[in-house]
Amino acid sequence: MTQTNEPTNETCAGNCTACPSATKCDDPRNTAEPKGLPPKAEISVKHVVLVLSGKGGVGKSTVSANLAYALANRGYATGLIDLDIHGPDIPKMLGIEDARLQSYDGKVIEPVRVTGNLAVVSMAFLLPERNTPVIWRGPMKMTVIRQFLEDVNWGDLDYLIVDLPPGTGDEALTIAQLAPNIAGAVIVTTPQDVAILDSSKAVEFVKKLELPVLGIVENMSGFVCPHCKAEIDIFGRGGGKREAENLGVPFLGSIPLDLEMRQAADEGRPFIIRRTGAAESPTWKSFDAIMQSLVDQIGD
Amino acid sequence: MTQTNEPTNETCAGNCTACPSATKCDDPRNTAEPKGLPPKAEISVKHVVLVLSGKGGVGKSTVSANLAYALANRGYATGLIDLDIHGPDIPKMLGIEDARLQSYDGKVIEPVRVTGNLAVVSMAFLLPERNTPVIWRGPMKMTVIRQFLEDVNWGDLDYLIVDLPPGTGDEALTIAQLAPNIAGAVIVTTPQDVAILDSSKAVEFVKKLELPVLGIVENMSGFVCPHCKAEIDIFGRGGGKREAENLGVPFLGSIPLDLEMRQAADEGRPFIIRRTGAAESPTWKSFDAIMQSLVDQIGD
Repeated sequence: MTQTNEPTNETCAGNCTACPSATKCDDPRNTAEPKGLPPKAEISVKHVVLVLSGKGGVGKSTVSANLAYALANRGYATGLIDLDIHGPDIPKMLGIEDARLQSYDGKVIEPVRVTGNLAVVSMAFLLPERNTPVIWRGPMKMTVIRQFLEDVNWGDLDYLIVDLPPGTGDEALTIAQLAPNIAGAVIVTTPQDVAILDSSKAVEFVKKLELPVLGIVENMSGFVCPHCKAEIDIFGRGGGKREAENLGVPFLGSIPLDLEMRQAADEGRPFIIRRTGAAESPTWKSFDAIMQSLVDQIGD
Repeated sequence: MTQTNEPTNETCAGNCTACPSATKCDDPRNTAEPKGLPPKAEISVKHVVLVLSGKGGVGKSTVSANLAYALANRGYATGLIDLDIHGPDIPKMLGIEDARLQSYDGKVIEPVRVTGNLAVVSMAFLLPERNTPVIWRGPMKMTVIRQFLEDVNWGDLDYLIVDLPPGTGDEALTIAQLAPNIAGAVIVTTPQDVAILDSSKAVEFVKKLELPVLGIVENMSGFVCPHCKAEIDIFGRGGGKREAENLGVPFLGSIPLDLEMRQAADEGRPFIIRRTGAAESPTWKSFDAIMQSLVDQIGD
């Protein structure tokens, strides 16, 4: 059963770009690309930050969107790519779900500009209807990911935040191969055991690709009843921090489970810009602190 | 950009089994399989039920595991396939994460038998370490999915529950093509807008594959503070039911956000068998009702 990890001569379809064994396969069909790896995409960016998780529904998109806003607010030219091709939620969260990608010359694609220095690209901007499913297999996704990097008029970016779908499949592998200047990966988890288990896989995945693990973010960490102020153990608390210590990777911080955060996403106004006088909000502060530790690690 | 939906002559790698256009492509390489679709897997099962969602983290695996238990408890010979290849959580939830798939003859794989009439197969049973990531592209997954169906000693099954990863990608497409006697799909969602949006895509996906939508399950529906008993609007409530009405598909029921459910998953004891004298638990009742509406729809 373990042989399924790599194609045999019988199962090989000659599709080397989609094959995990391409770098070491000596089948004659593989000679056209001796190293098997596709060339890096041409995009001007100083630091690419991948946001991923093992498990779905842990708040990857929320972290990505708010992180991109926080960086743009600090003055960095920031791009945000929503690579969740089957479930692109970033546009909904930012309230730009009706936007569409434009092209003035039929070649270069204009991203959706949210602010002067924050531009977004998502599969959602290409769908005819909001509920159109994207029924694509891996090789198709690879094509669109390259287009999102190369054919978009990003300008010169300081940071490019890439929001990935959960897991360690095609999208994650492809962006890791195609994107230049990858500063590393942020792993988002929630505190409960099943999420922690999956996040440790994501950490191993990043290490296997020889990329830096920028750190673990623990989302939905602890919950306080808004009525009686008692702490409720919905998803637990502290699992992400313990896991970071166990795996020997940085812990970037925890974000409380906050009703306003969910409402912000549903209303399409990012939490981090939603509050006025936000400085008193523990949730806002935790986002700011996470963003700061990232910038401290990566630099300008 | 929209051309990326289907390969052009230049991008075609001749890998017809992985191609969304295989059924209508007249490229000479496609003639070996005139219809382009792979043959159905050989497995003796009366009803295959796919459990899917648009968004991750909505409780698909929880629903799948408890549904399989409920069916087995009713006396049905039940199989459960965990098709979340990158994040297989079912074994952890069932407390069988240390089990391994065995083969007595090197050909037929023995599933992990949880009870006399409930057998489980998961990628987790094949991994050397709990945190080993599975870094596979789509075509590799197709091979293992066929093996999970054909090469496993399932016996004669009444029901086979298939827990899918979120989204409408390779795994969902492959199982829809390979599995025989698909009774239909159960779509799991949580009540908040972003999850509902993605679940409507999952419904469209199932319709496009010309499979029946058995119905929508709303998970994490409403939350009551265990201390002050006040209702807290964490993920909202009722979104799944409204969406089912809008889309004209059955609504199977809602499951409350229940701390015991999360704890049950972390402790590896399925919620539905965890409680003694469970009849008074609203969560248990809601599971039982959902299972009953499914059996009523599908039959024996």
